[in-house]
Amino acid sequence: MHGTAVSATEAGNSQDSGRRIYVDALQCSNWDRALLEQWQAGGLGCVHVTTSIWDGARETLRTIARWKRRFRDDSDIIAQARTVDDIHTIAASGRTAVILGFQNTSPFEDDLGMVEIFHDLGVRVAQLTYNIANYVGSSCYEPVDGGLTRFGKNVIREMNRIGMIVDLSHTGPITSMQAITASERPVMASHANAAAVWRHPRNLSDELLRALADRGGIIGCAPYPHLTGGDEVTGRQWAEGVAHCVEVMGIDHVAIGTDSSHHFSDDDLRFIREGYWTHEPNFGAGSPDKPGWLPWPAFFRTPADFANFDTVLSEVGFDDAERAKIMGGNLMRFYGEGFNPQLP
Amino acid sequence: MHGTAVSATEAGNSQDSGRRIYVDALQCSNWDRALLEQWQAGGLGCVHVTTSIWDGARETLRTIARWKRRFRDDSDIIAQARTVDDIHTIAASGRTAVILGFQNTSPFEDDLGMVEIFHDLGVRVAQLTYNIANYVGSSCYEPVDGGLTRFGKNVIREMNRIGMIVDLSHTGPITSMQAITASERPVMASHANAAAVWRHPRNLSDELLRALADRGGIIGCAPYPHLTGGDEVTGRQWAEGVAHCVEVMGIDHVAIGTDSSHHFSDDDLRFIREGYWTHEPNFGAGSPDKPGWLPWPAFFRTPADFANFDTVLSEVGFDDAERAKIMGGNLMRFYGEGFNPQLP
Repeated sequence: MHGTAVSATEAGNSQDSGRRIYVDALQCSNWDRALLEQWQAGGLGCVHVTTSIWDGARETLRTIARWKRRFRDDSDIIAQARTVDDIHTIAASGRTAVILGFQNTSPFEDDLGMVEIFHDLGVRVAQLTYNIANYVGSSCYEPVDGGLTRFGKNVIREMNRIGMIVDLSHTGPITSMQAITASERPVMASHANAAAVWRHPRNLSDELLRALADRGGIIGCAPYPHLTGGDEVTGRQWAEGVAHCVEVMGIDHVAIGTDSSHHFSDDDLRFIREGYWTHEPNFGAGSPDKPGWLPWPAFFRTPADFANFDTVLSEVGFDDAERAKIMGGNLMRFYGEGFNPQLP
Repeated sequence: MHGTAVSATEAGNSQDSGRRIYVDALQCSNWDRALLEQWQAGGLGCVHVTTSIWDGARETLRTIARWKRRFRDDSDIIAQARTVDDIHTIAASGRTAVILGFQNTSPFEDDLGMVEIFHDLGVRVAQLTYNIANYVGSSCYEPVDGGLTRFGKNVIREMNRIGMIVDLSHTGPITSMQAITASERPVMASHANAAAVWRHPRNLSDELLRALADRGGIIGCAPYPHLTGGDEVTGRQWAEGVAHCVEVMGIDHVAIGTDSSHHFSDDDLRFIREGYWTHEPNFGAGSPDKPGWLPWPAFFRTPADFANFDTVLSEVGFDDAERAKIMGGNLMRFYGEGFNPQLP
């Protein structure tokens, strides 16, 4: 079954009536047809995919063009979504709606005009920083988090104006807090967990989670093993991490962002971490003793296992309506608000 | 009056009923508010503007972003059109519809994926070459016109697929003829004249004009003084040049593309001609004895004079219905066909 049916009451806050749509707030893979078929197997109605980690404007155009070609070549199972209405239509057709996004503001370079350019191309989410400080602010790994820059404030204002969602994953805590305040729209941490449960620079303090929720924001909880202490984590333990977020933020502000990353080579992993910014080894979310890709936990080997989240969330006591919100309903509501253009 | 009213019968083949819309198939200026106000004064309902002459993909993004900003700053008098319906709506509101286009395929670089990227950004017309040979083919100034390249054929096929119009102005005669044949959709020479009337490398032979019309194509006749022997040309003489095109091509295949170019400095003119391809002086459409900008002819000093074309066309015997076609009706029909996406 492909992310359809169940019941109207389970659709949570989604605009959808009678259809429960599974949404993954972030995946970042070396895409091929086999990975897209995992979305089908997992019943995913919508996936937000990363189209830039380190690249500037020109190279990102190539990546987006590759997606455009994929939308034609694999039009039987995927299609590009620019609006929540698109997501509904595409999911109802049994395909997976793809939202293009960035894990860095690098495609904007130092050029505010690029926000609207990439919005025109369908980009709907941009993470303020990847793993280093940039024109916009500081990453969670930067020794000193200098907060949001003047350009960073302009970028957030422009994203607000045009309907592009601010993502705080990987972003430093001070920059994140300032971004939550600066943004006139709710913001998101698309793939992270609660630092109170698993201590990691990329996980968010309860203070940040609370601020996020207070302004209408959302977290996508991640089974990514570096963010949960390793692949030994059980489904139940991970679901308890989700429950912590719900306790701090409320049921309407918690979703799933798997950070699913597949078909990358070791060289690809080096690029993901070292980009163009260092000639020394860097371990990103890992560490010298865990330098490579970790195996994924047993309950989520690949996106084909997405429906397992429903089971493990049930095990820690979430009822049907709550699970419908976490599995996609909250993101559908949030995207519906966030993609809505406010052009003057 | 702003490009509205007159009568239904005068609308020619335009999809429009009861509204006559003036359309300029090409302008290329150093834009500012004063120039946009000339469009209003001239009653122009639609103008196709050049956003790249020599620039590659990245720089062209900046130029398009500048237009996006202009669409906000000057939203009282202009708006971006992506479809013929947009043109109708914008013109009916008393504003001028702006179609973004290129006078070169340089923004595509050697990357076929860029055609869809720029289409997404609203680009609806691309001229195959500017004044030199490129990845796609040869210009009208190249000593040897090697014809359309393999990449050039791919670009035309992709433009056909997606609904972007092929423009043959400045393109070499062999490349042009091959493009007319290769294109599954009608193509355009947006700003040129008949070489049989005014001999100039940029003007088209009757053979080319006939081939263009045979495949449903269109010419935008240009009062640009280098293409009419100089600014001494009278309105009547220019209109006789239009009449020659109508004689060769038929009344449904002739329009106006002024090549209006204003507010450029002498240095700008050098860049327009020399781009990045030469360190020697180059005179483009001019010559060593006419090296600079020529004054515009008395009947068309600026786009504010656009309605004068109606008068001079009348002087050489075109009736109301014919003039409605030449002044915009033909381009509205042609754009309606050309912008229509044929995505698989």
